[in-house]
Amino acid sequence: MKRKNLSVILSMTFALIFMATVAGASQLKYVFFFLGDGMASSQIQATEAYLTTLNGGSAMKAEDLLQSENRLNMSKMPVHGMQTTYDAFALMTDSASAATAFACGIKTVSGTINMDSTKTYSYKSVAQLAHEQGRKVGIISSVSLDHATPAAYYASVSTRDYMNNIATQMAASGFEFFGGGGLVSPYGPKTSGDTSNNAVNLLVANGYTGRFDRDAIMALKTTPASKVVCINPWLQDAAAMPYAIDRPAGNLSLAEMTDVAIDNLYKLNNGGKGFFLMVEGGKVDWACHANDAMATIGDMLDFDNAIGEALTFYVQHPQETLIIVTGDHETGGMSIGHATTGYKAYYEKLLGQKNSFTYFAQNQWAVHKAANSAGYDWTQTDNLAKNTEMISLMKDAFGLDWSKLNAYQKEKLEDAYDKSMCGTNKNSTDANQLLYGSYEPIIVSITHILNESASIGWTTYSHTGVPAPVFAEGIDADQFSGFYDNTDIAKRIAVAMGIQQDLPVLK
Amino acid sequence: MKRKNLSVILSMTFALIFMATVAGASQLKYVFFFLGDGMASSQIQATEAYLTTLNGGSAMKAEDLLQSENRLNMSKMPVHGMQTTYDAFALMTDSASAATAFACGIKTVSGTINMDSTKTYSYKSVAQLAHEQGRKVGIISSVSLDHATPAAYYASVSTRDYMNNIATQMAASGFEFFGGGGLVSPYGPKTSGDTSNNAVNLLVANGYTGRFDRDAIMALKTTPASKVVCINPWLQDAAAMPYAIDRPAGNLSLAEMTDVAIDNLYKLNNGGKGFFLMVEGGKVDWACHANDAMATIGDMLDFDNAIGEALTFYVQHPQETLIIVTGDHETGGMSIGHATTGYKAYYEKLLGQKNSFTYFAQNQWAVHKAANSAGYDWTQTDNLAKNTEMISLMKDAFGLDWSKLNAYQKEKLEDAYDKSMCGTNKNSTDANQLLYGSYEPIIVSITHILNESASIGWTTYSHTGVPAPVFAEGIDADQFSGFYDNTDIAKRIAVAMGIQQDLPVLK
Repeated sequence: MKRKNLSVILSMTFALIFMATVAGASQLKYVFFFLGDGMASSQIQATEAYLTTLNGGSAMKAEDLLQSENRLNMSKMPVHGMQTTYDAFALMTDSASAATAFACGIKTVSGTINMDSTKTYSYKSVAQLAHEQGRKVGIISSVSLDHATPAAYYASVSTRDYMNNIATQMAASGFEFFGGGGLVSPYGPKTSGDTSNNAVNLLVANGYTGRFDRDAIMALKTTPASKVVCINPWLQDAAAMPYAIDRPAGNLSLAEMTDVAIDNLYKLNNGGKGFFLMVEGGKVDWACHANDAMATIGDMLDFDNAIGEALTFYVQHPQETLIIVTGDHETGGMSIGHATTGYKAYYEKLLGQKNSFTYFAQNQWAVHKAANSAGYDWTQTDNLAKNTEMISLMKDAFGLDWSKLNAYQKEKLEDAYDKSMCGTNKNSTDANQLLYGSYEPIIVSITHILNESASIGWTTYSHTGVPAPVFAEGIDADQFSGFYDNTDIAKRIAVAMGIQQDLPVLK
Repeated sequence: MKRKNLSVILSMTFALIFMATVAGASQLKYVFFFLGDGMASSQIQATEAYLTTLNGGSAMKAEDLLQSENRLNMSKMPVHGMQTTYDAFALMTDSASAATAFACGIKTVSGTINMDSTKTYSYKSVAQLAHEQGRKVGIISSVSLDHATPAAYYASVSTRDYMNNIATQMAASGFEFFGGGGLVSPYGPKTSGDTSNNAVNLLVANGYTGRFDRDAIMALKTTPASKVVCINPWLQDAAAMPYAIDRPAGNLSLAEMTDVAIDNLYKLNNGGKGFFLMVEGGKVDWACHANDAMATIGDMLDFDNAIGEALTFYVQHPQETLIIVTGDHETGGMSIGHATTGYKAYYEKLLGQKNSFTYFAQNQWAVHKAANSAGYDWTQTDNLAKNTEMISLMKDAFGLDWSKLNAYQKEKLEDAYDKSMCGTNKNSTDANQLLYGSYEPIIVSITHILNESASIGWTTYSHTGVPAPVFAEGIDADQFSGFYDNTDIAKRIAVAMGIQQDLPVLK
């Protein structure tokens, strides 16, 4: 074949592909937005190193780390991007302002949802715009449904603390599916200035039904409901689903909740204009705030399994589906290396942790403290070393072997134990603030030492300003490659969904 | 116009673009590979936050952070990717194995250059393959020219410590341009097992000339040399160029060295097959090892300015140029947030640091210690608080105001000062290892406290395993989008340059 002829054939082939792509773009029906709260590159890499270890490989071998089974769904998606996460007045964004960027395409001040930074104007979210178009909408979060990230898809409010106001707007949303945790303030104000509505009554009045146990929720897979709120039977803290590593048998995982939502929305749509589904892995952030790597990794895996449900759906609807995954900010200053471990990683040390810091605090620790705090004298040395019960608890719950700790680690735990047991130790106030933040000193010290021994370090109990990765697959996924701002996410979603107006759109 | 006609016109237009692209790909002549040693997302974000502050904006305002003048050249490049950095047997790669991945497309064991992990087979680098094709080759590094990263482009050696062997292979490379730092072991072995050659004589015998002062080096811009080694007149440590913030007037910046190399190679090429230029910002890594944010940022800016030189060239040769930028690994576990600063950033606090930790150690500290260490008694408290000279030095050299530090920070500095002055303090050995690594205790404690006060945290003195971002611009830049392995960088560069063989290629 002559070169010129090949060129002509190639160009014609390409033209056909191009036409198919243009046609495909207009066929986009199903849009998934997965938001890992507190998730950036470190959380992803730590989870893959853990998964490699869990699957019998070594986090110290590239051959194992690169195995497909040891990689997360998200990191195998074909399109990669990066977004700057800062908000209008903070290098370290708040989840509310970050959610506003993703939902409305505007920068705002920390704590504010879908309003500008002067708290004057309200904006519509991409979910609301999609709903106006005739798309079905589902909102899932592992934390409460009135929390900042889910709220940004149906509410606009001057402060995220107005959770009764948020729940009130949720009842008026008309969205088809809500699932995950519960509501923090369904019956009235928790904070001065908030509304005082019975949001449950409003939800019912607006046609919503509630599902509160596993079977009732799972039933939606075959018999969808037109307006439904699915709340896991056991909520652990602040109306949130339990950490994945604490999940009791009766609860649904985030992946199962996503699976239910997909079937419910797809059947409800019934060949119509499609759906928009937002899924938040909200407790990745909470675990990172507390510097608990295993609770983080457990929820990262659950979040990634939820993405797996969308990918399964995508395989069945490849010409009509777009999946986007990102994080709103990094939390904790997590790193994949520590001064005490140098160039080595020991993820096997994490395998001994059975539950989250929260579970331990609510259970073993609560019992232990009640039984041991009377007459506690912090001026004595070796209080912890002498307490065989606590030594056993650390071993059983976290896999932390006291006998193998060095002098510095023991001293750190002794100081923390003193502080936790009686509120006082020999450290300065400044030192304690740095060492424990607002967390239970002995528990955060246990996770610090455990995490560090695995090679994971932390620098803060707050959010950080590092950019967050973006992953995408499906129709128009290419629009999410490159390095851009978090507000561009909403704008590109709007373009992909064929929402004609330029964002932001005033309410 | 009818819809069908529009489609036809569109597809024909696209076909023309496609044909132009195919033609363009085969025209690729000039390939730039920029390697920020120790650079990942945190180093980039910290530098942009600093730049924003330096330019009169605030690191706490998105409006300022998003200004083009406050963004680095690399983060404005259109194509973004991410690569996993681990090597054959380490989650935290060494620079030698990472350089091997970029140069040859293989995973190897830490410390090894361009040989497999059993140290049996040697492989050719993309620079060597390009040179065989007739391209001119330039190698620039801010550290010594026999250091791991530059070495991977011309040498294969079982251990990076064999720097005389590396220098010997450099002399035999035939590459047209070397520039930056000097050689660590030009005249013989520094490590047992190494060769014992006079590399300077070999370079001369092979036709190389040396340039050792600014004017002689700059003259290459107009009158190119066919085989030249350009070494900055003042080398600070281990034959490396000084940190950018320590640069004396007579030295060239990394950007200037890059500018010279571009002109020299372009003129030497004289309408031929083009060139391959590798530029390493090698001391970003060294500064991060020492947990010195300002030395890091200074060298990040110099590295980014060097990228700016390539972008200027790209504007003049848009159809023939490809620029790729990445890091080999993150160093230090740097984070954009700290427990003591929470959701606030204070980059203005970094503006007071005048020089790097190395410069301070070699100058002010050396003099101070010599004059103050006799009879030093570490059991006394307040040794530092009472030493007005050292208090002044901290203020003058780092902008650290003793009177504004809290009790915890003062205690940390007192302990470090004791350790630095007499080798002993009240801490356990384990605590000292964590607090200072192998660095001068008082100096690393000063940068820790200064960095933390700005909101920058560190978790280690080693490399970490977080993935590294990739930026690309020019012909075939799209090949560098997505999330892939570091070995894919070499493979994609080889494809872009039209090297027919699949990598790796045995020597």
